[in-house]
Amino acid sequence: MNGIEKYSKRAKEINSLVCVGLDSEFSKIPERFLKLEFPQFEFNKWIIQETHEYATAYKPNSAFYEARGDQGARELKMTMDYLIQNHPDIFTILDAKRADIGNTNNGYVTSIFDWLGFDAVTIHPYLGSEALVPFLERIDKVSIILGRTSNPGAGELQDLEIENKPLWQIVAEKVSQDWNKNNNCMLVVGATYPEEMRKIRSVAPNMTFLVPGIGAQGGDLEAVMKVGLNSEGLGLVINSSRGIIFAENPKEEARKLCEEIRKYKNK
Amino acid sequence: MNGIEKYSKRAKEINSLVCVGLDSEFSKIPERFLKLEFPQFEFNKWIIQETHEYATAYKPNSAFYEARGDQGARELKMTMDYLIQNHPDIFTILDAKRADIGNTNNGYVTSIFDWLGFDAVTIHPYLGSEALVPFLERIDKVSIILGRTSNPGAGELQDLEIENKPLWQIVAEKVSQDWNKNNNCMLVVGATYPEEMRKIRSVAPNMTFLVPGIGAQGGDLEAVMKVGLNSEGLGLVINSSRGIIFAENPKEEARKLCEEIRKYKNK
Repeated sequence: MNGIEKYSKRAKEINSLVCVGLDSEFSKIPERFLKLEFPQFEFNKWIIQETHEYATAYKPNSAFYEARGDQGARELKMTMDYLIQNHPDIFTILDAKRADIGNTNNGYVTSIFDWLGFDAVTIHPYLGSEALVPFLERIDKVSIILGRTSNPGAGELQDLEIENKPLWQIVAEKVSQDWNKNNNCMLVVGATYPEEMRKIRSVAPNMTFLVPGIGAQGGDLEAVMKVGLNSEGLGLVINSSRGIIFAENPKEEARKLCEEIRKYKNK
Repeated sequence: MNGIEKYSKRAKEINSLVCVGLDSEFSKIPERFLKLEFPQFEFNKWIIQETHEYATAYKPNSAFYEARGDQGARELKMTMDYLIQNHPDIFTILDAKRADIGNTNNGYVTSIFDWLGFDAVTIHPYLGSEALVPFLERIDKVSIILGRTSNPGAGELQDLEIENKPLWQIVAEKVSQDWNKNNNCMLVVGATYPEEMRKIRSVAPNMTFLVPGIGAQGGDLEAVMKVGLNSEGLGLVINSSRGIIFAENPKEEARKLCEEIRKYKNK
């Protein structure tokens, strides 16, 4: 079973598409965790305990851990050890947005897939697939390529037109038709751009999309569900970070997002 | 004095453009260092002691440290502490090829500029300048944007044509004319593509280029010096990694590269 199958199996089993973004920014962690020896890890552990029954995936963003130097690296590792031991059926993504050339990527592969043990990593496409071979050849893992990102200024480069197609579409077509030959790629498609998602679904009918931008960033879940699901009613990893983890009641927010997803799925 | 001025001052003072790439891959470190408690740091310290008189810049690639988890993070920090204490006039670049959206980048800024203390970081352009504000607003530091990378497959996306201009040129123009309004950007331009470098020099006459690809990757120094120097005989950061650090005699290789640079500068 490769990583994408692991994700789909979990999504079917619990009838959810919820990915909880562990963007555990230190300055926002509730005070009761700050007295503990490993505050980011203890906070994550609590979030996982509260949300796991609705979670198909967890996605820490590496930046929030790197900000704390080697201590952050250690607490990210502790978070992964906890997940692997307690919830081996939940898909794990490191949102690290990496990509270097050729063999240099082996360092990231070792760190993210082998040392930390993630199922998947997010990747910039700018260097081309030749550079990304160390990621793409890992058929047991998942490479999630940035297609259309969720930020307001995403279009500055991504909307540039190449023979009447925007760059984001070219990237989606390349990934779908070529880079994904081992069936181990996903695409990042922001919830804030549902029209682009519709187009990407048409050029990549069978791929799974990681969808950031729901919640704090203003993405509309109903629109995403309408245009993004694949023919099996799957194919989306719907991430919410701050909207869940820094809510008064994370469990309730995860449950609500899961129920909303179920509602739109059945429409 | 901002980071670019720091670089130019050092380059003038020692009449060199040599950047030593501290790509200290663990499996390639000489055996005598492996018995020590901090082998990557001790190896780097030795390389710095051997090469500093020719070095305008040091550039560790983050991947080789991340491959060793929190231990690698610690040894990278030790390397930077050593450099800042002993060679505060040498420019430091973390080749990390980062870029996330908006505030998430604050984590990388904190980690790379503040915790580790680097002068500069390499950055992917795909998300656009709006996403990169946390880097670009650091006027005391340098954002080095990937323009034309040195890898053989760089053209897959970078050569795509937008109104008769390749994407790498559009990126170079945008960075030069817009992203660089605080005069704190550089561009990555691979030594393996001298024709592209000539064009980028014409659209970004005053910018400084970080030039990977000399040595092991096959870039031609003479061609680079001919097309890449700016009108002051500066504007290039010429990196060599494996060709220096894993040579029998790193000092001799750094000296040779420096002398070659001087020779072509005076042509």
